[in-house]
Amino acid sequence: MNKPEVVAKIFQGRAFVPSLEGAEAFAPINIALCKYWGKRNTAINLPAASSLSVSLPSKGTRTYIKVIETAEDKIFLNGQSLDASLDFSKKLTDFLNLFRYEARGFEVHTESNIPISAGLASSASGFAALVLALDKLYNWRLSRSQLSILSRLGSGSACRSLWTGFVEWQAGQDAEGMDSHGVPLTDTWPDLCLGLLVFAEAQKAISSRVAMQHTVATSPFYKTWPSVAAADLATLKQAIALKDFEQLGFVSEANAMAMHALMLSARPSVLYARPETVSTQHAIWAARNQGLSLYFTQDAGYNLKLLFLEPQRAEIEALFPHCETVKPFVK
Amino acid sequence: MNKPEVVAKIFQGRAFVPSLEGAEAFAPINIALCKYWGKRNTAINLPAASSLSVSLPSKGTRTYIKVIETAEDKIFLNGQSLDASLDFSKKLTDFLNLFRYEARGFEVHTESNIPISAGLASSASGFAALVLALDKLYNWRLSRSQLSILSRLGSGSACRSLWTGFVEWQAGQDAEGMDSHGVPLTDTWPDLCLGLLVFAEAQKAISSRVAMQHTVATSPFYKTWPSVAAADLATLKQAIALKDFEQLGFVSEANAMAMHALMLSARPSVLYARPETVSTQHAIWAARNQGLSLYFTQDAGYNLKLLFLEPQRAEIEALFPHCETVKPFVK
Repeated sequence: MNKPEVVAKIFQGRAFVPSLEGAEAFAPINIALCKYWGKRNTAINLPAASSLSVSLPSKGTRTYIKVIETAEDKIFLNGQSLDASLDFSKKLTDFLNLFRYEARGFEVHTESNIPISAGLASSASGFAALVLALDKLYNWRLSRSQLSILSRLGSGSACRSLWTGFVEWQAGQDAEGMDSHGVPLTDTWPDLCLGLLVFAEAQKAISSRVAMQHTVATSPFYKTWPSVAAADLATLKQAIALKDFEQLGFVSEANAMAMHALMLSARPSVLYARPETVSTQHAIWAARNQGLSLYFTQDAGYNLKLLFLEPQRAEIEALFPHCETVKPFVK
Repeated sequence: MNKPEVVAKIFQGRAFVPSLEGAEAFAPINIALCKYWGKRNTAINLPAASSLSVSLPSKGTRTYIKVIETAEDKIFLNGQSLDASLDFSKKLTDFLNLFRYEARGFEVHTESNIPISAGLASSASGFAALVLALDKLYNWRLSRSQLSILSRLGSGSACRSLWTGFVEWQAGQDAEGMDSHGVPLTDTWPDLCLGLLVFAEAQKAISSRVAMQHTVATSPFYKTWPSVAAADLATLKQAIALKDFEQLGFVSEANAMAMHALMLSARPSVLYARPETVSTQHAIWAARNQGLSLYFTQDAGYNLKLLFLEPQRAEIEALFPHCETVKPFVK
């Protein structure tokens, strides 16, 4: 099973004519509380375990796409034309090849209000927005679950960016991945705050994809990860249902640290930590030891995302002046 | 089986009279290349896996001990009298109770040329020197292996500080731990250099003992550690036999990072990293990517120990001006 076969299965031989005026869509970034780390199928991005995220509706990617006369794609990021040889362009063109019904190029304008490739889930919102825009462009009228599957082919975690709120990416069991997509939780949590602490906007030295594959291939502890993720996911869903913030924070932080532990145990190690990362982690733990209800999560990058509730917001923003607070459930 | 029973088994009911003038001994610190992390028996410090170290004969502890008239122990560290309520004093007195034939105190003078409780193996050299001094004080005439077992009762890794050079701590299988002691390797490696990089001489916030027990109790990955350590130990012994420095360095570093990964995956995490720790790790990896043959190991503390060979010494000391180079096989 490869990506074109998944696409063919979803479209069942139907053909589509693009809208002449193009189409535009937005998708949010999502921050995983139970991480996606490792694939059971690398060709079509099927995960080794289910994961769980919360979307940040004010942060993400807006994408405009139209079909053009020239054969080459024209790709723009935040207003700037990108050379076709760049990784960003190649990934986009590769993905668009799945939906290129004629030998014609696409013009794609991507506007993102988050740094690219800095561990802030930019590729997740990017592929989700692109798939939503393609759905409009071609008038596919696919279900959100089907769009989630198509987004997954671009970047695994993109399949969670089709919704706001809490989203579970169910790993599924189907060899073709037709049951491996996002499923939104109905719970809301208006007091929940995420605090973005961006230390490094520069691109990571090692991409998440490479770090993930290297971890799976070389970490002696990786084989235990799927059971850790499954247990954490169940605890997090219970914490969300019961609005038990201490449990949500503790398990989110522990799950993130387990993922980083796997990377540290890869041979050679992958260490997504800069001096600011560890000094901030120690500061968070010190504040927590003083009684502050504050946790964090960390993706495959140097930055941290604080987890706290509205009543603690003022105190936490005073402690971490660079923290940008985002409330997932408040527009 | 508890500590007094192990001591009774070794001495078989023999009684000893202390020398009136006291006795003095020195033991080196040892740096583990395959780490000791986790116990199969906490009462008598039996390890979950075998480990391997190299001793640094110029760094360590010199201990003088004599029996005094008063009942209370008098403990001095680097010339300063220590209060009996300090952890250092309590650990020493507890250990000395194993060898107190009359209700009389000991006067103990400990001189150490390394920081205490900073991840520099000070307790290993301390207990080894103390046991060597007791052997002289009482004229026990025990074998090195027996002294190694007694040292182990004070601090597990102390059992490797009874020798210079490479020392394997064989985990053993005996429930009483009579086969769990150091065994020196005959190999020497005159070109081998260890570079001590001390960022923090202050005591660690969390002791190795507490971090180890917390890891064993809460890390979801710990169950894999004994097999990781066994495989690394075999590879390191092969690297030493073949003088394959790349293999020695790579596996030593990976084994240390696997231990730190376990701590990171404990719940909550234990992170022995300060800003200088991670910036130096990145600097080491950058130098290695440039072709320099340089590795490191890290114990349960913030400091790093560089591993390199004499031909690279000048270049490495220029890159890391605070590095104190020690050659384990050169007096």
